Amino acid sequence: MTASTDVAAGADPVAGLIDGVRRGDRAALGQAITRVESTRPARRAEADRILEALLASTGGALRIGITGVPGVGKSTLIDQFGLNLIEAGKRVAVLAVDPTSQRTGGSILGDKTRMAGLSMSDQAYIRPSPTAGTLGGVANRTRETILLCEAAGFDVVIVETVGVGQSETTVAGMVDVFAVLVLPGGGDELQGIKKGVIELADILVINKADGDHVATARRTAADYQGAINLLSADSGRWRPPVLSASGLRNEGLDTLWETITEHQRVMEEDGRVAARRAEQRVAWLNERIEAHLLALIQSRPDAKAALADARDAVKAGTTTPTVAAQSVMAAAGLKS
Amino acid sequence: MTASTDVAAGADPVAGLIDGVRRGDRAALGQAITRVESTRPARRAEADRILEALLASTGGALRIGITGVPGVGKSTLIDQFGLNLIEAGKRVAVLAVDPTSQRTGGSILGDKTRMAGLSMSDQAYIRPSPTAGTLGGVANRTRETILLCEAAGFDVVIVETVGVGQSETTVAGMVDVFAVLVLPGGGDELQGIKKGVIELADILVINKADGDHVATARRTAADYQGAINLLSADSGRWRPPVLSASGLRNEGLDTLWETITEHQRVMEEDGRVAARRAEQRVAWLNERIEAHLLALIQSRPDAKAALADARDAVKAGTTTPTVAAQSVMAAAGLKS
Repeated sequence: MTASTDVAAGADPVAGLIDGVRRGDRAALGQAITRVESTRPARRAEADRILEALLASTGGALRIGITGVPGVGKSTLIDQFGLNLIEAGKRVAVLAVDPTSQRTGGSILGDKTRMAGLSMSDQAYIRPSPTAGTLGGVANRTRETILLCEAAGFDVVIVETVGVGQSETTVAGMVDVFAVLVLPGGGDELQGIKKGVIELADILVINKADGDHVATARRTAADYQGAINLLSADSGRWRPPVLSASGLRNEGLDTLWETITEHQRVMEEDGRVAARRAEQRVAWLNERIEAHLLALIQSRPDAKAALADARDAVKAGTTTPTVAAQSVMAAAGLKS
Repeated sequence: MTASTDVAAGADPVAGLIDGVRRGDRAALGQAITRVESTRPARRAEADRILEALLASTGGALRIGITGVPGVGKSTLIDQFGLNLIEAGKRVAVLAVDPTSQRTGGSILGDKTRMAGLSMSDQAYIRPSPTAGTLGGVANRTRETILLCEAAGFDVVIVETVGVGQSETTVAGMVDVFAVLVLPGGGDELQGIKKGVIELADILVINKADGDHVATARRTAADYQGAINLLSADSGRWRPPVLSASGLRNEGLDTLWETITEHQRVMEEDGRVAARRAEQRVAWLNERIEAHLLALIQSRPDAKAALADARDAVKAGTTTPTVAAQSVMAAAGLKS
């Protein structure tokens, strides 16, 4: 975990990176992630080689997803929560999924400022969202970055998302446990929580339950628990609990960790952790194949134009999607 | 709407079907739907021709989705609800989405028995789910059948699903308004309602609110309304109301219809009905293109085997989805 010079500068730079990540070298990890995020084919090929070599060393971390609207206190909570875990002897990586991010790959000042405590610790690794791209592309890179962090020996990987588009669903599909932070008081409408997000939660956390907000938080927690008990039962295996916490005052974060580990224990009882991860990998594979196939269409000028025409015609209702899809396939020169 | 002999027997049988559907001839409609459901390429080509010719005559129906677990009383409610609409001068089609259906295309005895009142009316048209197939395939045929029913002049098309796999989400994606039926008493867990289904509802109906169940239904309605107000706010445009009804006693069904038309009115205010339908058509196009592309892979033996190997390897965690997807594309001889 010591800083190093360009570890990729040797005779076989990629082999150097693989070794470096395995040793937990932060610079090597950073350079490996940069390759994962690259759109240059040669770099991507290096990323694939690194990932394949390290695959047997992955899977060791507890993967935690955290979402919540801006202002709910995600950064403060993750910062304090991560510091607590480090104090308990764990190494913590924090990744972000934000397809609207305009930050360049190299600038993580924003995240370092947001998580001032964690960014000072050599047991933590903070990586911002890859630069703006499609959610599918960002998700793919984040999934691979989780694997790299695991190979580098991190015990906990936290994936944070602010909830743009479908990003909560995407993050819930790459973690072992998904926590949704909400504010004391008000329903989803007041809180700006999108429809369907609460349903994704394995754990709901009423954050900022401090000072004047304690009584409100208690009422909010009871309301949400009642609603979840009515609407979100999941075959009785795990009923999402509603916790109160204050990231700012470091209150309720021990309970959050205990609840996360209890969730893992319950899921592991019937082999659900491994099954969930296997399902997530197959879904990831399907996404990748679809992305390749759509890229194939986009790469053929006639087909790209046909796809745009098909979308317009279908939107306008002047042709059926069935016939429009056939015309796209024909323009791409693809026949099944 | 009179019965007829084989309307497709003339010089241009497809032209005869097109005219027949336009006139509202039930036999022509049935034969057109049979072509839509066919897996034979020549029949499918006829279906496409029929749909394209009729497209300008589609879109005139109110499309209502209804779901609920077995035993909730879907058939009885739809039967009575449909009869009420017919009494009010409307023509009603009822379609089913059930990818597990083992019925053959011709046997609709089951549905006729289930909806004894509607099946006697010449203002109603009941069509069972296409024979077992993938949900995507069943969904595609149901979407096309909606269009045919509209071209045949039906004012209301009800799409019913029992909730297998993702079928509720699929049906919610092809209708203007989606109603979920639940039983008085108990939460989702007791009711067997899947996680996420309540979130899809535009209207929730506590069915069987009759006899001894009236008080329980009132409590259940209040509980669900509270939970929905907390969890399912949708930008304030439409807060899903919870109604009580009894399909058996024809109680609350007028209110259900008023609520459905009120939902349409609210949605139409800001052009959301047309926008929702356009979005649904584009999603349908994307599904069709994906289905073609996956069929393309399955049609090439090497690629089909590579896909199976890729799934196994990814499940076992011996390769990354990124690399596995590339091997599938290479085996299919496809390069973007």
